[in-house]
Amino acid sequence: MLKAELINPFLNATKNVIETMAQTRIKAGKPHLKDDKLAFGEVTGVIGMSSETTSGTMIVSFSAPAILKIVANMLMEPLRPAIDDEVVDAVGEITNMICGGAKAELAKINHNFDLATPTMLVGKGVEISYYSSTPTIVIPFATEEGGFVVEANLGTC
Amino acid sequence: MLKAELINPFLNATKNVIETMAQTRIKAGKPHLKDDKLAFGEVTGVIGMSSETTSGTMIVSFSAPAILKIVANMLMEPLRPAIDDEVVDAVGEITNMICGGAKAELAKINHNFDLATPTMLVGKGVEISYYSSTPTIVIPFATEEGGFVVEANLGTC
Repeated sequence: MLKAELINPFLNATKNVIETMAQTRIKAGKPHLKDDKLAFGEVTGVIGMSSETTSGTMIVSFSAPAILKIVANMLMEPLRPAIDDEVVDAVGEITNMICGGAKAELAKINHNFDLATPTMLVGKGVEISYYSSTPTIVIPFATEEGGFVVEANLGTC
Repeated sequence: MLKAELINPFLNATKNVIETMAQTRIKAGKPHLKDDKLAFGEVTGVIGMSSETTSGTMIVSFSAPAILKIVANMLMEPLRPAIDDEVVDAVGEITNMICGGAKAELAKINHNFDLATPTMLVGKGVEISYYSSTPTIVIPFATEEGGFVVEANLGTC
């Protein structure tokens, strides 16, 4: 289930987007299968991936301290005191960019997807369920300020 | 913004799915533009729609009493006391069916979309934001037991 060829595109795209575009150092933890439904963080981007044969979902879920620092770095602005509309928009943009990067790498191994528009959720303790019997891969990341996770559920891949 | 040709496919598909497949009478309220971010209900299905030129998102958000009754009717089972995994799965299926029905009707007016897999959210007071500057159309529905809404944000349509 934990095929490196499916995990690495998401891992690499995340490192690229957060380290390059948001100039924030991150450290990837050990990928694992998700065993509950709770969203990791307080603000979460959800993006659908579809092709003629398969479909999937990717989410990026940030703790408040992690996303506030990432957004401050990305926009070169002081740290905001709380999650506001611009932070939520930035989560949508980051979700789009990570999934776009993963899509490009997945295409090289003949997994071709179209991306839907991301949707962003704000709230603590939200449960997220995928309409899929495939297990969900979780890649945890740490920043100096706090953690976030990237989750991918790739349907029938 | 509130073009009937874009609203009616969602309205008709919702009536068809809930009344025919879930044998539950519903009454549509007046469609309007969404003016806040709060999810209407306690359990919500989110589905991405994408094409080469446009993309969008549809959500269906149910109050607990409405979805518990709809699921009981759909599965021909007694009312469950609370939202459980089967109810959440049913929300995914209903979201899929409504969006699939709307997709078929939208295709007739040359709006062609692929559908991503739905994602389901459980939680009260979740805020949902769309990564789009297009206004979100809300179609409210009433059942005898409680309400639900269908929202569509159709990107650049």
